[in-house]
Amino acid sequence: MPPELLACLFLALVAVSASGAAAARRHPAPANSTATGNPVYIWPLPKNFTSGTRTLAVDPDLALDPRGPGGGAAAVAEAFERYRSLIFSPWAHAARPASAGYDVATLTVVVASADETLELGVDESYTIYIAAAGGANSIVGGATIEANTIYGAIRGLETFSQLCVFNYDTKNVEVRYAPWYIQDEPRFAFRGLMLDTSRHYLPVDVIKQVIDSMSFSKLNVLHWHIIDEQSFPLEIPSYPNLWKGSYSKSERYTVEDARYIVSYAKKRGINVMAEIDVPGHAESWGNGYPKLWPSLSYMRKIFPFGLFHLGGDEVYTGCWNLTPHVKQWLDERNMATKDAYKYFVLKAQEIAIDLNWIPVNWEETFNSFGESLNPRTVVHNWLGPGVCPKVVAKGLRCIMSNQGVWYLDHLDVPWEQVYTAEPLAGINDTAQQKLVLGGEVCMWGETADTSDVQQTIWPRAAAAAERMWSQLEAISTQDLETTVLARLHYFRCLLNHRGIAAAPVTNFYARRPPIGPGSCFVQ
Amino acid sequence: MPPELLACLFLALVAVSASGAAAARRHPAPANSTATGNPVYIWPLPKNFTSGTRTLAVDPDLALDPRGPGGGAAAVAEAFERYRSLIFSPWAHAARPASAGYDVATLTVVVASADETLELGVDESYTIYIAAAGGANSIVGGATIEANTIYGAIRGLETFSQLCVFNYDTKNVEVRYAPWYIQDEPRFAFRGLMLDTSRHYLPVDVIKQVIDSMSFSKLNVLHWHIIDEQSFPLEIPSYPNLWKGSYSKSERYTVEDARYIVSYAKKRGINVMAEIDVPGHAESWGNGYPKLWPSLSYMRKIFPFGLFHLGGDEVYTGCWNLTPHVKQWLDERNMATKDAYKYFVLKAQEIAIDLNWIPVNWEETFNSFGESLNPRTVVHNWLGPGVCPKVVAKGLRCIMSNQGVWYLDHLDVPWEQVYTAEPLAGINDTAQQKLVLGGEVCMWGETADTSDVQQTIWPRAAAAAERMWSQLEAISTQDLETTVLARLHYFRCLLNHRGIAAAPVTNFYARRPPIGPGSCFVQ
Repeated sequence: MPPELLACLFLALVAVSASGAAAARRHPAPANSTATGNPVYIWPLPKNFTSGTRTLAVDPDLALDPRGPGGGAAAVAEAFERYRSLIFSPWAHAARPASAGYDVATLTVVVASADETLELGVDESYTIYIAAAGGANSIVGGATIEANTIYGAIRGLETFSQLCVFNYDTKNVEVRYAPWYIQDEPRFAFRGLMLDTSRHYLPVDVIKQVIDSMSFSKLNVLHWHIIDEQSFPLEIPSYPNLWKGSYSKSERYTVEDARYIVSYAKKRGINVMAEIDVPGHAESWGNGYPKLWPSLSYMRKIFPFGLFHLGGDEVYTGCWNLTPHVKQWLDERNMATKDAYKYFVLKAQEIAIDLNWIPVNWEETFNSFGESLNPRTVVHNWLGPGVCPKVVAKGLRCIMSNQGVWYLDHLDVPWEQVYTAEPLAGINDTAQQKLVLGGEVCMWGETADTSDVQQTIWPRAAAAAERMWSQLEAISTQDLETTVLARLHYFRCLLNHRGIAAAPVTNFYARRPPIGPGSCFVQ
Repeated sequence: MPPELLACLFLALVAVSASGAAAARRHPAPANSTATGNPVYIWPLPKNFTSGTRTLAVDPDLALDPRGPGGGAAAVAEAFERYRSLIFSPWAHAARPASAGYDVATLTVVVASADETLELGVDESYTIYIAAAGGANSIVGGATIEANTIYGAIRGLETFSQLCVFNYDTKNVEVRYAPWYIQDEPRFAFRGLMLDTSRHYLPVDVIKQVIDSMSFSKLNVLHWHIIDEQSFPLEIPSYPNLWKGSYSKSERYTVEDARYIVSYAKKRGINVMAEIDVPGHAESWGNGYPKLWPSLSYMRKIFPFGLFHLGGDEVYTGCWNLTPHVKQWLDERNMATKDAYKYFVLKAQEIAIDLNWIPVNWEETFNSFGESLNPRTVVHNWLGPGVCPKVVAKGLRCIMSNQGVWYLDHLDVPWEQVYTAEPLAGINDTAQQKLVLGGEVCMWGETADTSDVQQTIWPRAAAAAERMWSQLEAISTQDLETTVLARLHYFRCLLNHRGIAAAPVTNFYARRPPIGPGSCFVQ
């Protein structure tokens, strides 16, 4: 083949490879923002960190050295194995000469407590230290994660995995900008994602994928909106007819499925908050069970998390006046329908509290009769901004999901608006700020099923995740395009690399396909 | 809680649960189409089958009984374990009393040959027999798969897995309509899916997901369009500068990645046909390598499949006349640019054949100088219908990918048009029909990346998969909405259940989200 024939192709090549190099430059290397002002590619951003200038090679046979009362927990060993398989491709052997050795051959994980209880406010803090042997700041080289709980250790493992990057030239997994010292903990205790399995059934394998991806961004509550008026997919053994309200005989969750989901989430430090939305969204509860409340005591056995969501939104009470024997019941008690709504919600709260649950209610309950809600109530905002300030002023706790910014089915909300939504907005009193448990992005399922649920959730849920995890001072920046966007691109590409169908970051409408060829790091 | 308050909710409930039941009826139970005319929920439809009326319970500890020279191959045992984990959820224990026993406790897999060679035309036939002990047609109960090769056994395992359905009432995995006798083999030897990793890089984990889903529909060739003008992601060790044409330093495939993909696909009976598209799509080959052809000999070590795709489409020869030393080279040989295009393609064919590859070329080569192509050439149709008849009339082999029906990035092609596209259309001579190797659906990547590639591929690729696997008489039906649609819905739900983001079937535009709440089986 005469080389001349290829020559004119190469005229274009110089330009193309130059633009390829430019693309690589647009995706700059991780760096310590303190030292150089470059982005730190850890999402969400840790509370405190220092970094250096060394590149360390990580042994593909990285070993776990468990320490402390909780270090030997199976949950720690399992999490280490999960992260090891995310960090290393088993087929990608490093070409490093045996004599060279590795800078990081062991990951020491020190866990102070063996208590595996996962509840709201569990200690998720951790410290990471990574250094080469003989480094300026180290006597013994290697990597260490220290945490008070196994859940803190799991958060630390996620951060460690994000520091480990495969170098395609050396074919080593490397930690750049070492030594690293990271001290981290979340700003809010409740960092949720809601999944709606009533509008579309999501198979267990898909819920597992969502839980995996939540753990990558350190979200810690899966709010499972299990049922709604469209379908009732969950088995309640004491009322076996209930799940006849499922879409089909196979679009269902057995009790064993639900327990498995809870267990799978727990291993990733994620609580499952179930919701039975009453009385406004209960039309699928059919088939002749007038006394449904006892089913809650069965659900208590499935869902150990201390919070339970009782719904309470979008109640249409008009029909109560149109049903003769309900009308009679109301008349006998001299109740208007709004009184009955209140009676219903408060009764449900009582039952939940008797079951040792903290009741969570959508904000309509607070807006309608806030003064009557049980003081333990957590009010779940959704209608708009400004609700949590009113809630915490009354001494109740609040979760923010302002639909204008944190409803993921609102496709016209760009990532910047998700990112800048602040749960503490309008709350200046420190004691009142503590009543804001955090927030939650909501993936309502009318147009989201297995085919598109992940591309609708990500990357915008990650923007909220950093908002809820990272320190306010670090993320309250005015110029997101230059200070945050590259890091969010990077995290979206990380999700893609881990097989998660996260959508392009910069499309104005969420979950739209890429607009043309290009790198993951700029779309 | 006074039951009266719930009563008016129940007014709606009757209607809703009735419609729920209707939805279940729209998703009828599997049945023998011979006996009752109901759909058989196996995709693609097997060649010959008979069924019965019994329901058999399958042991969650189902054991493999490997027989024959190839039965003991690791590939068989691995495939069995894969399918076991698809059939049984480890947490969903059957409630069956121990005394009842199971009808199917062992799967016997008999493989006649231990030869693990996977090449075009490998024997993929298999026979399945499933019966209860003491059944009318059986002496010994259980399930048996017989195949000539391990790849036939793997196809049989897929079919077996589709016959095994979890019953949410009994909590057993069951085979309904037993006894089953199935004899199956594909109509075409080449049933491909093309992935384009140049317009968007697809991480290895994503390619694995695509390979998994291909095996579910019995596709057997992954046509890997690795590079194009936009990026060059593949490592060629002898030309280490080539993959500097990748979008970024991490949007790359190492040689080890490529080998792993080939090996991963082989375990699922899928060949990887690589493509280096020259001379029309080679602008990313840059950085000063005028003699690129030797790189093909390195690629030969990575890609063992006997077919290699040399591209040859969309060549713009105009620039050759504008480049002085190319123009001089042409003038010295008294060549026009079209002569040079021909020279280039034929030279590439020679090199590929010297490397013991069968060259595959896009149809422009045939359209331009078909009489000069090497007789071993496989012509790859794409521009429109009617090409394969001309190709096979000239004695060459053909693969159909008519862009009007089998280009998956053409979003306005509904599943029915994909399904009814027939590779043998216009070819009546039996000998000529044998020259049609099969077909391929093409997933060009301009607007498909990790976020949406699976929802763009599925379910329409499945429509083509049945077209290429199943017998023409069985699938050439006039009323697809009643005879095929329910089965395709079912297969799409199966993909979803296995975690694959297959899109709704009936949306006119492919990969669009569901239009509203509803069952997977009707969307």
